[in-house]
Amino acid sequence: MIHDQPGAVPFLKGHGTENDFVLLPDLDGRLELTPSLAAALCDRRAGIGADGVLRVVPSRLDPDGAPYADEARFFMDYRNADGSLAQMCGNGARVFARYLVTAGLTPSGALRIATRDGVKWAHVPPDGDVTVGMGPAVVAPGTVEVSVAGRSFDAVAVDVGNPHAVAFVDDLDDAGRLLDPPTVIPAAAFPEGVNVEFVVERGPAQVAFRVFERGVGETRSCGTGACAVLAAARQRPGADPSDRWTVDVPGGRLTLTVGADGDIAMTGPAVLVAEGEIRREWWEAHR
Amino acid sequence: MIHDQPGAVPFLKGHGTENDFVLLPDLDGRLELTPSLAAALCDRRAGIGADGVLRVVPSRLDPDGAPYADEARFFMDYRNADGSLAQMCGNGARVFARYLVTAGLTPSGALRIATRDGVKWAHVPPDGDVTVGMGPAVVAPGTVEVSVAGRSFDAVAVDVGNPHAVAFVDDLDDAGRLLDPPTVIPAAAFPEGVNVEFVVERGPAQVAFRVFERGVGETRSCGTGACAVLAAARQRPGADPSDRWTVDVPGGRLTLTVGADGDIAMTGPAVLVAEGEIRREWWEAHR
Repeated sequence: MIHDQPGAVPFLKGHGTENDFVLLPDLDGRLELTPSLAAALCDRRAGIGADGVLRVVPSRLDPDGAPYADEARFFMDYRNADGSLAQMCGNGARVFARYLVTAGLTPSGALRIATRDGVKWAHVPPDGDVTVGMGPAVVAPGTVEVSVAGRSFDAVAVDVGNPHAVAFVDDLDDAGRLLDPPTVIPAAAFPEGVNVEFVVERGPAQVAFRVFERGVGETRSCGTGACAVLAAARQRPGADPSDRWTVDVPGGRLTLTVGADGDIAMTGPAVLVAEGEIRREWWEAHR
Repeated sequence: MIHDQPGAVPFLKGHGTENDFVLLPDLDGRLELTPSLAAALCDRRAGIGADGVLRVVPSRLDPDGAPYADEARFFMDYRNADGSLAQMCGNGARVFARYLVTAGLTPSGALRIATRDGVKWAHVPPDGDVTVGMGPAVVAPGTVEVSVAGRSFDAVAVDVGNPHAVAFVDDLDDAGRLLDPPTVIPAAAFPEGVNVEFVVERGPAQVAFRVFERGVGETRSCGTGACAVLAAARQRPGADPSDRWTVDVPGGRLTLTVGADGDIAMTGPAVLVAEGEIRREWWEAHR
C-alpha cells in the first residue's frame, strides 16, 4: 500500500439494497465538499462511483445541522450524484446509521440522525439489518396515467415528502427497459417531476417494484418509493390488512411496517464494503 | 476511520481514460481471488465497481507469471468484470505500471510487465502520462458490413490479438445509443465475436471513436480498439502519413505512435483515485 499520504481524505463505500454511497467522515467539520467534488466522487469511472455522497459531520458543526444539534449528534449531509444538495435518503440513512455504530461513534440500539428533512430515528442492532423512520406516505385521491414501452397504466399519486406515481402492472417486464422517463398524465399534477414505480403483487402482504427516479433513471432501490408502494398497495380493494409488508426491489428486500399514526418504519440491509483514503492529488484536481 | 481490521484486503481504485480498475496488491502471492470475488468487486452498486480487476503479484509467485519471471518482476493478473480471466488490457497496463512506480515497487522510467499475452514494456515518467507497448495491429483485406441504429457501414477487420471491426462514420451519433451489439456481416468472419469501433476524422492525424466491446457494451475507452482504429485510419486513401496520431475516446485522449516494425506504443493518463481496505466480512461473504 502507498498509505499515509499527507492530506488524503478518508472515505468509505457502502450500500443499502444496492443504493450505494461514498461516506466522508468529517468529524472536525473541516472538509470542503464542493458540488464539483461530490459529483466527481460519484463518477463511476473517473471517481469512486456511487448514487450519492453522505458526509458525516457533528450537527453542531454544520449550518444545516446546527438547529438539530440538541436532538441528534450527527448530521447526514446528503448530496445527489450530480453534486446537488438533497433532503433525505432512506437507504442512505441506514448506511449512515450503520457507520456511526461500526465506527464506535455511537452505541448500537436507538439513535437519531439530523437531515435536511428534520430529525429521523433509527435502530441499529449490533449487526444485521437497520431500521429507519420514514414518516407517513399520503395517497392522493383519484388516478393519473403512466405510459411506458407502448402501454398505459392507471397509477396513484403518493406524497412521501417527494412525489411518486405508483402503477400496478401484471409483470415487472411490462415497464420495458426503462431507459427514458415514463410519461405521466396530467403532467401538471407533478410540477417538479415525479418518481414512477411499477409494482406487482407477490403474495400476502408482499409486493415487488421497479422504479424510475426523476433526474436519475432506473435504480436498484428507492426508500421513499418503497413507502409510496406500500401506501398504494394497502389501499387497494381486498388488500392484505397486515401492517407489516415485504417489499422487494431489484437490489434486495425491504420490510416496511406501518404504525398506528401512519408513520412507516423501513428495515433493510446496510453494508459497509470498504474504507480508505482518496488521494490528495485527485481531490485537489476535482475541486 | 474504522481502520486496521484484521484480515482486511488492501485495494486501490484507478482509471485510464475512464476504463477503471480495482487493483489488488498481492506481494506475498497469498490472495485467494476467486471468479466470484472478482465479479463482486467489479459490481458497481454492491461492490467497489470497475471494468476489471488488476491483481499485482510477483511473477515468480503466480503460475501464469512464472514463465516470465526472469524478464518482468511483476505479473498483471487481469480479470474481466464478470470474473473471467483475460489476456491483456492496454488501459489497465498503464494503471498497473503507474501503481508499481507510485508504490515504490520499481523506479520510474522503463519497466516490463508480465501478462497472459506475454511481456509488455512500459515507460512511466515520475508523473504524467504512461506509455505501453501494444504490439502490432493487422488489417485484413476486404470489408465487412456493420449495421447499427437502422444504418449500415463498410468496416475493416483488424486483429490486435483480439478481433475488431472498424467503421468510419460521418458523426459519432450515427451509432445511436449503442445499447445492443451492432450486427456484423458476415458473422462467420468473427467466430469468437467482435469489438466494433465507430470512427470520425477530427483533423490531420487525429480521429475520435466510440466502441462496443463484445460481451460488455459501450465503454468509455478501449486500448486495443484505439490500435485497431489507428491501423484502419492509416491505410485509408489520402491518410495523413504521420506515425504519431491523436485518438480521442469518450473517456479522454490517447496518443499512438507506430514504430518502423509496425508495433504501436500507446500513451495516455493513468490515474490512482483512492486506496484502502476491503472489509473482511464483505470479502468472506463474496467468496
